[in-house]
Amino acid sequence: MLPVKMCISASAASRIIFQCLRFYCQKPPKKLRICEAVSSSDMGTNVKVQGWVRSVRHQKQNLFLHVNDGSSLQSLQVVASSQLNHRLLTFGSAVEVSGLLVKSPSRRQEVELQANQIHVVGECNPVDFPFKVKERHDLEYIRQFPHLRCRTNTFSSLLRIRSEATTAIQLYFRDKGYVQVHTPVITSNDCEGAGELFQVEQEEDGGQPFFSVPAYLVVSGQLHLEVIAGAFPGVFSFGPTFRAENSQSRRHLAEFFMVEAEISFTQSLEDLMKVMEEMFRSTTEHLLAQCPEDVALFHKHVTPGHNVRTQSISTKYQHQNTMITYTEAIDILNRSSQKFAFETDWGCDLQTEHEKYLVKHCGNIPLFVTDYPYTLKPFYARDNLDKPLHTVAAVDLLVPGVGELCGGTLREERLDLLKTRLALAGLDETYRWYLDLRRFGSVPHGGFGMGFERYLQCVLGVDNIRDVIPFPRYSHSCLL
Amino acid sequence: MLPVKMCISASAASRIIFQCLRFYCQKPPKKLRICEAVSSSDMGTNVKVQGWVRSVRHQKQNLFLHVNDGSSLQSLQVVASSQLNHRLLTFGSAVEVSGLLVKSPSRRQEVELQANQIHVVGECNPVDFPFKVKERHDLEYIRQFPHLRCRTNTFSSLLRIRSEATTAIQLYFRDKGYVQVHTPVITSNDCEGAGELFQVEQEEDGGQPFFSVPAYLVVSGQLHLEVIAGAFPGVFSFGPTFRAENSQSRRHLAEFFMVEAEISFTQSLEDLMKVMEEMFRSTTEHLLAQCPEDVALFHKHVTPGHNVRTQSISTKYQHQNTMITYTEAIDILNRSSQKFAFETDWGCDLQTEHEKYLVKHCGNIPLFVTDYPYTLKPFYARDNLDKPLHTVAAVDLLVPGVGELCGGTLREERLDLLKTRLALAGLDETYRWYLDLRRFGSVPHGGFGMGFERYLQCVLGVDNIRDVIPFPRYSHSCLL
Repeated sequence: MLPVKMCISASAASRIIFQCLRFYCQKPPKKLRICEAVSSSDMGTNVKVQGWVRSVRHQKQNLFLHVNDGSSLQSLQVVASSQLNHRLLTFGSAVEVSGLLVKSPSRRQEVELQANQIHVVGECNPVDFPFKVKERHDLEYIRQFPHLRCRTNTFSSLLRIRSEATTAIQLYFRDKGYVQVHTPVITSNDCEGAGELFQVEQEEDGGQPFFSVPAYLVVSGQLHLEVIAGAFPGVFSFGPTFRAENSQSRRHLAEFFMVEAEISFTQSLEDLMKVMEEMFRSTTEHLLAQCPEDVALFHKHVTPGHNVRTQSISTKYQHQNTMITYTEAIDILNRSSQKFAFETDWGCDLQTEHEKYLVKHCGNIPLFVTDYPYTLKPFYARDNLDKPLHTVAAVDLLVPGVGELCGGTLREERLDLLKTRLALAGLDETYRWYLDLRRFGSVPHGGFGMGFERYLQCVLGVDNIRDVIPFPRYSHSCLL
Repeated sequence: MLPVKMCISASAASRIIFQCLRFYCQKPPKKLRICEAVSSSDMGTNVKVQGWVRSVRHQKQNLFLHVNDGSSLQSLQVVASSQLNHRLLTFGSAVEVSGLLVKSPSRRQEVELQANQIHVVGECNPVDFPFKVKERHDLEYIRQFPHLRCRTNTFSSLLRIRSEATTAIQLYFRDKGYVQVHTPVITSNDCEGAGELFQVEQEEDGGQPFFSVPAYLVVSGQLHLEVIAGAFPGVFSFGPTFRAENSQSRRHLAEFFMVEAEISFTQSLEDLMKVMEEMFRSTTEHLLAQCPEDVALFHKHVTPGHNVRTQSISTKYQHQNTMITYTEAIDILNRSSQKFAFETDWGCDLQTEHEKYLVKHCGNIPLFVTDYPYTLKPFYARDNLDKPLHTVAAVDLLVPGVGELCGGTLREERLDLLKTRLALAGLDETYRWYLDLRRFGSVPHGGFGMGFERYLQCVLGVDNIRDVIPFPRYSHSCLL
């Protein structure tokens, strides 16, 4: 701690005396968070705040600071006699300030703090500090400093938004009676059947593998959720999932968060779509209500004009969301005059370019695409038993800007069909336990997953997925 | 679906006629969860419930079922004419039942369902199904069936409790203004300095490592939380952490959940202890209020007599929790007549046997042990600069039955001390970024972690940690 001596300015003597009296004779100053201080109506209260200096302005007689502690985007204006100035009082330094809360004469804020004491708790050399006062650094620049970027307004807002969105999703499911399940990270399953798996091994590789079987980082908690859905009306999980995709794209991470839900006794894709839609709407409404300033920062400075889209997505969702089948989607793509890099024959997987085209074509609103080819989806997708175009009961939710946000299927609950399909793939022994779920009290059920970072990209309009997660992991990058 | 024909019993003709009229002429039955049905006061309502059969009793004229859907521990009693019986209506089968909600003549429940239609949705061969009707299987037995054990009353209760405890912890921190941070699972740090790390690599090991650096599963999110605590008053994380401990103990898992909190501008261990204590109390009170039946099941059948302890821990916490220093703890152990397997000289780590003895010695209440030897704790622990017994500002919370539940420290915020310590260990280059946190606006701060499974063991009295997590991972075991 570097104490800075108490000082009495010459102006407004009577108020200062009153202030000193309070300081010495009465109870110690009340410790407030900045968010409490800036919205306080208790003028004249002796308070103490702690935080980091976001700006310093030194005039002849007065010193003006803005102090922020992360409890809100807004900083508290501190006014002090210039005698309280100190060479260590710089942008980025940590301070503890005591004084009186007063009505601010400026229109820019309601409240300010008349300081009678300022401690510099931790210094910050402005030459070495990578962020500069009053400069608005872009997301790419601050991304280079994963250990410091939370000290910028933008990333601090992102972290508050991420935290509130987490709460909103969990409250949504809890209110609907879902049980939250902690599905494991380490698994001996290979859920999607595809590669792109991270393998887990003990560092000291002393012969036998730690788990006696090959173990992987989970790519989806679905199969584990299905286990639990065998005894509950609805379950959900919210946690990290992994893909060893060698990609430098703006849409992929090696470690990302996924919300997954599984609903028992459900027989239609409409039931799943309803949950996706309600979750999206309720989470977005919660965010707009709880973090209006933080969301506005993104819409104003990071992606100007995006706010219109967010609000309209949220509203349009209610009235206008559109549903087409995969077969109709292929028709639309084939009738389009646009040249695509990937082919669009029936049976092909939809690529991001196709998804974005379809969303635009349908009026830039959330779009459900249903009933994908049987061969495109994993073994657990429910067979529609249709011909000649053989499909499964699958649905993807595509949204403007992002493309695929959610993907879900009804699960094959019919033992004989599932058994045949697994046997054909030579997987019936591996998934014997999964077949057991259909052997004992099987019910029609289905579920979906939503990429949490993609959701944040969609709502905030952030182009690069690395800017919506605190510590991004992707190929060739695992900082900290 | 296997439809079972509608049937009208001979008794109470007028009520049946009324019932049929409703069924055919009025709106379709209202779909209710079992928890809604058993607590309903809407007698005479035509409802539909879905769930799994927990018991079947067949009398001459009547059929009695108990149907459970996981929405509560309580099942709904269904009464039907014996003509509605069906050979597939067995213990474990999934059913859909429609009928009238009526006041139950029995004292054992308020409400029962007079069925007019029963569909067996999914059969269950009682010979193959590993659980038997009306048998109370012990935890060790059901642990052999990780894909089915959620279908037992005990594990279904555990999952509801785990979900509510998750909510309670998150609400506690949110109410106090903490920001929830998703710390990464994959990291290039080796936080505790010790081995016991899982390494992560891409399955197809084609030359260069995926991340270009060795990557591990995180053992603690603390260092990442400290990054974010550099811009917020308080942050927390709640997620999986990993130890490659080759242990078959009842207290260790390779993958377990941890709550971690980091508090800025804090200078005393008392501040940390207060948060640990409040979090414990508020979570336990929430559980006792929200899941009284589920908690009671454990206290009645799994660990008889434990309820007294849970309630008294929660209460005693408020009035009587005790605090001793490590040095006092060593004194107590050395004065004890008990023989310990591990030595108890000053400087030794406290083992579980020591922790349990200390808790007992102090009256079987939560016990804080503070100020551990400098050499026992990692580099980030704050030096007390004391002599001749050199200690750091660390605190562990020990609880009855479990031993160590939480561990925390004040973090070394003084750049020079941290630099020297890291340089001595040859880690100053590796942790350059961590030193940066002290270079730019450093503040006194501290934090702690709590093992979530240990918390559940403590509150429920469950002896084996594998019984409080849905999919336990430990050496030589990674089922599903």
